[in-house]
Amino acid sequence: MKKLFFPLLIAFFALSAVAHYAHWNATVQFILSAVAVVFVAGFLGKATESVAHYAGQRLGGFLNATFGNAAELIIAIFLVKEGLFDMVKASLTGSIIGNLLLVLGASAFAGGLKFKEQKFNIHLAGQNASLMLLGVIALFIPAVFVKTEHLSTHDTMSISVTVAAVLIIAYAGWLVYSMITHKSLLEDNEETKPDHGEEASWSKGKSILYLVIATVMVAFVSEWLVGTLEVFTHKFGLSELFVGAFIVAIVGNAAEHSAAIMLAMKNKIGAAVEIAVGSSLQIALFVAPVLVFVSLFFNQHMDILFSTIELAAIAVAVLIATSISRDGATTWYEGKLLLLVYVVLGVAFYFV
Amino acid sequence: MKKLFFPLLIAFFALSAVAHYAHWNATVQFILSAVAVVFVAGFLGKATESVAHYAGQRLGGFLNATFGNAAELIIAIFLVKEGLFDMVKASLTGSIIGNLLLVLGASAFAGGLKFKEQKFNIHLAGQNASLMLLGVIALFIPAVFVKTEHLSTHDTMSISVTVAAVLIIAYAGWLVYSMITHKSLLEDNEETKPDHGEEASWSKGKSILYLVIATVMVAFVSEWLVGTLEVFTHKFGLSELFVGAFIVAIVGNAAEHSAAIMLAMKNKIGAAVEIAVGSSLQIALFVAPVLVFVSLFFNQHMDILFSTIELAAIAVAVLIATSISRDGATTWYEGKLLLLVYVVLGVAFYFV
Amino acid sequence: MKKLFFPLLIAFFALSAVAHYAHWNATVQFILSAVAVVFVAGFLGKATESVAHYAGQRLGGFLNATFGNAAELIIAIFLVKEGLFDMVKASLTGSIIGNLLLVLGASAFAGGLKFKEQKFNIHLAGQNASLMLLGVIALFIPAVFVKTEHLSTHDTMSISVTVAAVLIIAYAGWLVYSMITHKSLLEDNEETKPDHGEEASWSKGKSILYLVIATVMVAFVSEWLVGTLEVFTHKFGLSELFVGAFIVAIVGNAAEHSAAIMLAMKNKIGAAVEIAVGSSLQIALFVAPVLVFVSLFFNQHMDILFSTIELAAIAVAVLIATSISRDGATTWYEGKLLLLVYVVLGVAFYFV
Repeated sequence: MKKLFFPLLIAFFALSAVAHYAHWNATVQFILSAVAVVFVAGFLGKATESVAHYAGQRLGGFLNATFGNAAELIIAIFLVKEGLFDMVKASLTGSIIGNLLLVLGASAFAGGLKFKEQKFNIHLAGQNASLMLLGVIALFIPAVFVKTEHLSTHDTMSISVTVAAVLIIAYAGWLVYSMITHKSLLEDNEETKPDHGEEASWSKGKSILYLVIATVMVAFVSEWLVGTLEVFTHKFGLSELFVGAFIVAIVGNAAEHSAAIMLAMKNKIGAAVEIAVGSSLQIALFVAPVLVFVSLFFNQHMDILFSTIELAAIAVAVLIATSISRDGATTWYEGKLLLLVYVVLGVAFYFV
Repeated sequence: MKKLFFPLLIAFFALSAVAHYAHWNATVQFILSAVAVVFVAGFLGKATESVAHYAGQRLGGFLNATFGNAAELIIAIFLVKEGLFDMVKASLTGSIIGNLLLVLGASAFAGGLKFKEQKFNIHLAGQNASLMLLGVIALFIPAVFVKTEHLSTHDTMSISVTVAAVLIIAYAGWLVYSMITHKSLLEDNEETKPDHGEEASWSKGKSILYLVIATVMVAFVSEWLVGTLEVFTHKFGLSELFVGAFIVAIVGNAAEHSAAIMLAMKNKIGAAVEIAVGSSLQIALFVAPVLVFVSLFFNQHMDILFSTIELAAIAVAVLIATSISRDGATTWYEGKLLLLVYVVLGVAFYFV
Repeated sequence: MKKLFFPLLIAFFALSAVAHYAHWNATVQFILSAVAVVFVAGFLGKATESVAHYAGQRLGGFLNATFGNAAELIIAIFLVKEGLFDMVKASLTGSIIGNLLLVLGASAFAGGLKFKEQKFNIHLAGQNASLMLLGVIALFIPAVFVKTEHLSTHDTMSISVTVAAVLIIAYAGWLVYSMITHKSLLEDNEETKPDHGEEASWSKGKSILYLVIATVMVAFVSEWLVGTLEVFTHKFGLSELFVGAFIVAIVGNAAEHSAAIMLAMKNKIGAAVEIAVGSSLQIALFVAPVLVFVSLFFNQHMDILFSTIELAAIAVAVLIATSISRDGATTWYEGKLLLLVYVVLGVAFYFV
């Protein structure tokens, strides 16, 4: 697989470029660009980790924390540019529930089949739970207030921008807290973290070059993918919500998903949990609010109001994931429960 | 009491049979069949435990887990047959909140008056909480999606059947997990389990015969009880919801209720918790979805959508019960809190 | 500050009396009476503690628990008398979220800047969480049932009075539990409690006299403040909700707020938590239901139905506060999270 990565990356990138510019069949375009996204997102992830490795622990941690979901952010920016706000929010919802239910569930299930019980740092679990709760609350409050009180568009945007700012402040605080002031408190967990060192097979210069190249590739492929979504959605009678929450979200996160499951099968469930929960936190506390600010540069401004069913899905995923991870251990059955909740949500979104 | 059990069982069964076939006054019919249900449900419970005792640990555990709420299941099937879906859902709701608030509350309160603090296995409490949460989520998601998106009846049934299947898969997984793969993890709790052995005062052959007889008796009495409910409900100006959630549910669970309280007063709070929580789990993850599938054999199909107030009641009961049991210990005051929440819900249902 | 307390108390009381009776400008009246409330509420708090000190541990604990929020209760009674029910409920909501988010958040943040991690009794945290949950449930159930089932005014009042009675029974039970039957269980926490002894700088007779004087002063100033609220609210285009939840609540609780922060900065976070959480419990389980009963003596009766956004705010505050305090330790970042949630709620209430 490792040897084939670059040839496949280049092949699918080239094919989806041809498909895009030669106006091939929409479904073919969609499939090729979706596969290409999986590869370029994986490439971007590796390049980010490699640069982070050379940047030293502190700056590296910051880079990973900020650009870990860069592929998703870039896809979402193109969606925002096209004014496809419903699909943006659906894809953010899908990323959060995908990480907390599909990735965490598959990791705990796959790992649990090999190991009876897999343990991880219980302190971190508690802190993560409170942070996820803040994310849910911050997305939930504006929706409740705006819907029950029928606020004006102007007030809605004011609330959205304030909440977005609060989320970014909370995220920045979390970086300071977990990387500087209380690093030692969470240090015993160090050994279970993904060993980024292993991945750094490239030299420093090459890593930076690859990071630039990967970012450009992601930007191109994202635009091609976004361009096919509307035709594809209508052709198969799917809703924007379903395509955003399940297809775009899974494609954008595929690289992380496979990494987490691999780690769990090596009994490194702590690292898998960190990928899944950390990625969800980044989406809720960083990517979502950044997109609100990004939209201010375009004609149409995106508020931070998620729909009732999106909020229900996020709340449900956070509740069950925190309930299961609170004891700092996972088993195959807990993984299965998470996957079953994902199935229930998938079916419900499909019928909407 | 033990000596009088069989005479009373036969007397009330016979009386309610006469009342039914001779068309006595509806209220008298209702009262006699309700009392008869208490006795035959108790008889069925004892027979199930006795057969389980001879079936060996594994199959016996499975029997207890599957037929522990057989009386309720049979009553509910007759309600489904009559198309009284609202009352079915109300009685399931009532069973869940009755077990989590009334039974657990009365056990903790009664036990707490005698013993300062009563402890039980904290691991099991965590697992139970996650499972109850899955049950709440699985009942909550279809209701939110169908109501906010105004789905068609066809889509509603598709979602209902899928969710029902997911719940049964989750329940089956739980049986495998708790009885086979992770039995040893929960083994330290063994001593607090109800000692089914004690109850096995009958021979193997007698136990099986009694199980068959008890099932037939429950089936008859259930039909007689269901037949009186509509007249009784209208006569006293009660809602289907109140009768289902409080009267049917208490009658169907009376035997378990008294057993749990007795155990708590013997300082076996772990066994009482297991009866209360285990029974709730069985209702939510097994009885409710089985009824959806059973309804497919009748003319009218029952969906899995509970009303807002039923979901609120279930969510509230699960929240407070898991909050109180999370620390693996109960006191009289915690029992009182559970009972007070039950009172609040009872009053609210009464006025609907 | 201590030396200036009495002169400032008397000065602001006198000034706001003059402003009231001489019909000064409404804004000036509002500001003067608001500042006066801060001082007289602080005076009443000190007098209550001093009397409690002489009354002995048990009766003193009861006095503190019952009259700890006397100033707020008196303000609220004047609001009830004026029929300003929306503002009463807003101010109760504001007190609860102010204590759980602003006071607890500022204490944890300020204390956390000086001390890396501040610990407190984990048992008490669990008990408090269950009690707060009961409060949320008791306020939540009537609202859900009345709104979804469109109950009559008569039934709404019946439910309100029942729920109010249940809350007072729960609160009375809590006093018996925590002060009599299970005092020893929570005893290891004793040292972190605010040392009321320190405060008793007055003789027994003086303390009782001061208590009477302070109560009378609070009653007067409360009436003056309430009299200015409507004019002030309209003049600045603020909603009753915002003024009640943020201005009245902060003014009425200012004395406690500063005490809690001071204690946290002395590394007595347990005492700060007890003030913040204990005060919230008292509002939800004692002040709110007492006001329902008090309203029965006036022409208009106040129900116990809070609005959706008030319930959302209370639920959110309880969730995040219990999630953060569950581990029995606080850090600066956890304080910051609480403060950020308070900001989000403040902004949302402002735009309503």
